[in-house]
Amino acid sequence: MSAPLADQLDIVIPTIRNLDFLEEWRPFFQPYHLIIVQDGDPAKKIHVPEGFDYELYNRNDIERILGDKAWAISFKDSACRCFGFMVSKKKYIYTIDDDCFVAKDPSGKPINVLEQHIKNLLTPSTPFFFNTLYDPYREGADFVRGYPFSLREGVATATSHGLWLNIPDYDAPTQMVKPKERNQRFVDAVMTVPKGTLYPMCGMNLAFDRELIGAAMYFGLMGEGQPIGRYDDMWAGWCTKVICDHLGIGCKTGLPYVWHSKASNPFTNLRKEYKGIFWQEEIIPFFQNVTLSKSSTSVEDLYVELADKVRKGLGHIDPYFSKLADGMVAWIEGWRMLNPPKAA
Amino acid sequence: MSAPLADQLDIVIPTIRNLDFLEEWRPFFQPYHLIIVQDGDPAKKIHVPEGFDYELYNRNDIERILGDKAWAISFKDSACRCFGFMVSKKKYIYTIDDDCFVAKDPSGKPINVLEQHIKNLLTPSTPFFFNTLYDPYREGADFVRGYPFSLREGVATATSHGLWLNIPDYDAPTQMVKPKERNQRFVDAVMTVPKGTLYPMCGMNLAFDRELIGAAMYFGLMGEGQPIGRYDDMWAGWCTKVICDHLGIGCKTGLPYVWHSKASNPFTNLRKEYKGIFWQEEIIPFFQNVTLSKSSTSVEDLYVELADKVRKGLGHIDPYFSKLADGMVAWIEGWRMLNPPKAA
Repeated sequence: MSAPLADQLDIVIPTIRNLDFLEEWRPFFQPYHLIIVQDGDPAKKIHVPEGFDYELYNRNDIERILGDKAWAISFKDSACRCFGFMVSKKKYIYTIDDDCFVAKDPSGKPINVLEQHIKNLLTPSTPFFFNTLYDPYREGADFVRGYPFSLREGVATATSHGLWLNIPDYDAPTQMVKPKERNQRFVDAVMTVPKGTLYPMCGMNLAFDRELIGAAMYFGLMGEGQPIGRYDDMWAGWCTKVICDHLGIGCKTGLPYVWHSKASNPFTNLRKEYKGIFWQEEIIPFFQNVTLSKSSTSVEDLYVELADKVRKGLGHIDPYFSKLADGMVAWIEGWRMLNPPKAA
Repeated sequence: MSAPLADQLDIVIPTIRNLDFLEEWRPFFQPYHLIIVQDGDPAKKIHVPEGFDYELYNRNDIERILGDKAWAISFKDSACRCFGFMVSKKKYIYTIDDDCFVAKDPSGKPINVLEQHIKNLLTPSTPFFFNTLYDPYREGADFVRGYPFSLREGVATATSHGLWLNIPDYDAPTQMVKPKERNQRFVDAVMTVPKGTLYPMCGMNLAFDRELIGAAMYFGLMGEGQPIGRYDDMWAGWCTKVICDHLGIGCKTGLPYVWHSKASNPFTNLRKEYKGIFWQEEIIPFFQNVTLSKSSTSVEDLYVELADKVRKGLGHIDPYFSKLADGMVAWIEGWRMLNPPKAA
């Protein structure tokens, strides 16, 4: 199996259970280093199949490493995965849920997700103009007639958002209305989400360039003690998209697919999502209209600026957003502690 | 064969030759009315296969019908097709080039282009937020988690831009660099081009709602006597997209595919495109930044306003743009003559 950039990419897996799902991924993941973020009871022992190279962090580790900033990492929610992004020392991150398995392409061939994600990350994005034949850098494709030549060099790619066959990533109301719906359609495309357009970024099958956008990949405050869940990846998606747009770098979506095996409980999900369903109606316009200081080009600085705008722009909805803004600041403090500027 | 809305859609075909290509389309097109716009020498007799219901306009007809506005319809260029949009009395238009044939889907089934285009036009668009599973109105698909519920009703669809298998729609430089490239990838998706994003709209396989956007579907001044060619559909694409964004209606791209049989001559194309390659570098930022009067909701009025902005904003590039602005105004005058307001 091809294992591109095995020395430059960490796989981050949040989990509360034994990682038997890795057996199916073995041919693809074994060449890479895994960062396992154990959620819930730290006394529980998580079994990792033999032969994988990994480090595992439980809640005690998070508390020990981040000290008075540890509260910013969610507990009892897969949002805790972002701790793995923070402690990684690699340029690229791939993160996957432990109920996702190897999907097959229409010819029946198992899909090498990392190969495709890395292809997405290493080829440019085209956020400024839409290419009707999709990814212009793919073999057998190009820019179509009418695509400005000055834009064909593209820009750096920050994020590669992969999709899911079988169980689609629906919200609780849609799960309830369409309990039997399965995604069986393999759409053979990768595209850049255009500048100025937000998208619902799902954390199930996601890769990104840690150096380019890692500091904004905070999954927010979810889980125990918080009024909301299942908006962790959405939050990270809105924040990273706005910052990528500001910096003129790209977010791609499409291939590769994983096989999502298990729908989460729609009743539990509704309880978690309930407030978010209302709140997102105000959050989306906020992110559609937010602007960041033109002079600022550091993701860390931009993220702190965004935290301030969140406090001022969303604080009226619920005191939660003020706490979330504090969390964003604490996240950056933790990020800076673990990722000090490289010596010149 | 399914022939949806056969009484509400005209097929517009610009041509300089006998329409033998219709034989392959017979099962799909015969239930519809055809508007054939004969380009070039009006003395030439164009053969249309038996059994099709059609009206045919040559240059003499255009001169007779439009009088002193006829100059605004291009001569010796397929841009003349827009005359067919103007004389139609139907709600929907489908236009196709006469070197496009029936494509097959991956299962080998011939693709009913009209059925798919009409599906695209009759279902809403979603220009304000990106749905990662593509068209949310398609069977087996929906909006994903994190898509705001207030936006799920969507908006009316103005344009359905279809794609091409075999010969891709490349510009002359790309044709020259990649003479053998063929599009063999069937991407099973339809998507809305997001608000604020321009796309290169190709006229080869295009459907639209004439009532919603027809008055802006002018293909400009190309061909004989003009300094530029092959930007007719691009021009219409930029203008219609800007007006659709202003009105909050949608443009879709993706399915259905046609089989594009013949690459045009890249040397001839380079001669036609030459100035456009330079000019589009200024035209695109113009369209990206142009704004129209908030109070205006009539496509005809908006198009006249846009003509004025073209004259002021692009006139410095070349005197051509002033003439093009005149053409845009003459087009609207012709449109109003042939499409008077309906009695209350």
